[in-house]
Amino acid sequence: MQAMPTHWYNFLGDLPGPMPEVRDSGSPTAAEISAQVRPRVLIEQNAPNEQWTAIPEPVAERLRQCGRPTPLHRAHRLEKHLGTGARIYLKREDVLPSGSFKLNTAIAQAYYAAEEGRTTLVTETGAGQWGMSVALAAKMFGLRAEIFMVRCSLEQKPYRRHYMELLGAEVRPSPSTHTAIGRKILGEVPDHPGSLGTAISDAIEHALDRPAAAYLAGSGMPHVYLHQTLLGLEVAQQLKETHGEDLGVDGRGDHLIACSGGGSNLCGLIGPHLRAKADGADLRFLAAESTAAPRLTQGVYEYGRTDLGGFTPEVLGYTMGERFIPPPNHVGGLRNHHSSALVSLLRREGVLDAVAFDQRTALEAGRLLLQTEGLLLAPEAGHAVAAALDVVAKADAQNLEPVIVVLASGAGFLDLQGYSEVLLDA
Amino acid sequence: MQAMPTHWYNFLGDLPGPMPEVRDSGSPTAAEISAQVRPRVLIEQNAPNEQWTAIPEPVAERLRQCGRPTPLHRAHRLEKHLGTGARIYLKREDVLPSGSFKLNTAIAQAYYAAEEGRTTLVTETGAGQWGMSVALAAKMFGLRAEIFMVRCSLEQKPYRRHYMELLGAEVRPSPSTHTAIGRKILGEVPDHPGSLGTAISDAIEHALDRPAAAYLAGSGMPHVYLHQTLLGLEVAQQLKETHGEDLGVDGRGDHLIACSGGGSNLCGLIGPHLRAKADGADLRFLAAESTAAPRLTQGVYEYGRTDLGGFTPEVLGYTMGERFIPPPNHVGGLRNHHSSALVSLLRREGVLDAVAFDQRTALEAGRLLLQTEGLLLAPEAGHAVAAALDVVAKADAQNLEPVIVVLASGAGFLDLQGYSEVLLDA
Repeated sequence: MQAMPTHWYNFLGDLPGPMPEVRDSGSPTAAEISAQVRPRVLIEQNAPNEQWTAIPEPVAERLRQCGRPTPLHRAHRLEKHLGTGARIYLKREDVLPSGSFKLNTAIAQAYYAAEEGRTTLVTETGAGQWGMSVALAAKMFGLRAEIFMVRCSLEQKPYRRHYMELLGAEVRPSPSTHTAIGRKILGEVPDHPGSLGTAISDAIEHALDRPAAAYLAGSGMPHVYLHQTLLGLEVAQQLKETHGEDLGVDGRGDHLIACSGGGSNLCGLIGPHLRAKADGADLRFLAAESTAAPRLTQGVYEYGRTDLGGFTPEVLGYTMGERFIPPPNHVGGLRNHHSSALVSLLRREGVLDAVAFDQRTALEAGRLLLQTEGLLLAPEAGHAVAAALDVVAKADAQNLEPVIVVLASGAGFLDLQGYSEVLLDA
Repeated sequence: MQAMPTHWYNFLGDLPGPMPEVRDSGSPTAAEISAQVRPRVLIEQNAPNEQWTAIPEPVAERLRQCGRPTPLHRAHRLEKHLGTGARIYLKREDVLPSGSFKLNTAIAQAYYAAEEGRTTLVTETGAGQWGMSVALAAKMFGLRAEIFMVRCSLEQKPYRRHYMELLGAEVRPSPSTHTAIGRKILGEVPDHPGSLGTAISDAIEHALDRPAAAYLAGSGMPHVYLHQTLLGLEVAQQLKETHGEDLGVDGRGDHLIACSGGGSNLCGLIGPHLRAKADGADLRFLAAESTAAPRLTQGVYEYGRTDLGGFTPEVLGYTMGERFIPPPNHVGGLRNHHSSALVSLLRREGVLDAVAFDQRTALEAGRLLLQTEGLLLAPEAGHAVAAALDVVAKADAQNLEPVIVVLASGAGFLDLQGYSEVLLDA
């Protein structure tokens, strides 16, 4: 049996330039708020001193029990269907028990919160993958969980709510009538469908009111990316040991592809490979985003906040603007109005390519994967599959035979309503 | 990486006595009907000449791609929660891409149907696990699928229908207005919720009308049990090689536990171990059934049919009678009115123990497994978990420390509505 990596990899030293300063002039400052609501170790892990951080054994034990390392699946039948010489690999995070890669950081964050004596985890969730993972991780460490879920996703995906509640979590719609910011937003837009921006605000305000609570971020922050480097580390090991593949062979156009909302499955996948690319490996990184929030492909590069409550600092990144309300579609995990500073930097410096797909195209790619490989992925991951199909078409046209790794970030069983509405009822 | 078994095991020679004769006096006879609708090889596999049958490579290849061998998971955290010295193992069929163990035989049956030139697969499904597996297997071999789904399950579990339809399958409620038998049943009981008995009848009648169609049975038949012996074979290998466990140690009370509807996950698990038990190993086999159809615990042992249309022969088995309509609960996979001849024989001869649970007890066991191990299983599998909890309690009371293997037959993500209705809304 393959071993799971023993350490997370800090790739901040491999970035193409310095991270831009944040603007943090509020009172209290975002840094002060963060220091109150976040476990201390997580703040330290936003800028680790070392290149490698040992995974604490209680975290590693639970990750192994959840099935890490997850399989790296060669998509032979999809390749055959496409008639391509490309070799397509799927990193199967969909098999984790909460249904997505989010569990990797949820377990780590819950552990650090418990170690500090926090008794309640508070967070936001879009499509519900992060909330499900936090609910499960909380239970693993004997903690309570309170989760603000984007209202339109909550209504579209009641099964995800049921899952969290079966684990004992408390789930509320966002914008929430429980918070001042939620009431303010609803005062301005009474039928606001919610977004990650509203839900982050609700969760942080709620956590601020509770001394024993920890606020956990599901994405967007370097400590989250750090925990997710398991993805890229396992892929590197599995490509070589299981499949006998080299990555980044000159002139072949090898690709690492992930969807990007807050950027954590993307950064977890590519982070451990940034150095190789900087050193000249022929390696392409591709972010697949939603046309519902096309920040990397159509946004402007400027300062802004990822939340709507002013609890986070202004960060430089590609953004649709804080007043942008993403349409209430079925890809809740990609409905962020502002891209993270780190992902934006990679894009700005040309290290990262980006492409946007509409919901139907992503779901059609998901259906093709189901019909060929038998794997039903979440709509978010469908964007990464759609991007891979584009890469394959271009490679075939150029007679290239690249290695393409697609992050299968989550399972789609609880998204069947969305698949059905878009593809079957039309 | 562990290897999948290369052969299926024919355990018919290991039964405690001869299989009772079937009664087949219809015109046409059930045997004639079977010969028309079933692929020839499957009929032969109801009574193989050899003890071992080589798995055809196209079948083996697809099973491996789907993740076989599936993990045998040691439930450390459940054990700790229970404070038991028993060692509890879960055979994780829930990770298969269609969400259940049914895929093991669906792939084999679809292969043999395609080899014979059949172009359409017709079948019934209760909760939908079998239908999903047939829909996926059909797509793997380029076949059409037409599926009759028990009406009450279809209404409770729309996501399972969506899944089948995304794979291109045609799904109809049973009793069906498309068949004479369906119309007859609806004429007598207009609001009939459907059962496996009605759906089997609809499917066989429909297949009889179509020369290029094959009718596939999801359970109850020896050829299905043969394909499912992968379960027991893998468990034996994994207990020894992965976990260093012997099975059937004297005086310890080791248990193999599975839920039982048509009996295929049960027989697949225990079949390869019947000989050891007959030879004196201290090994207990336990069937967990639903109080909605408690045939093995409360039924009478007499001749009857598993379908309502008279398409199958009368077989001797534990039965609730053909007029019995199981209440429309959330455990569609266990709502059979008549137990299979083979399972009934094992029970009759004392080789197999049986216990029945109501829906709430099974779902509560499922919730406990979610809250401890993080695994969400289908309600059917919750019955096996509930049985394991009883076995643990008795073992603890006797200071025994048995090995307990529980067949985690399917995933529960698409059953969250049922979990919610029974456990959360009450």
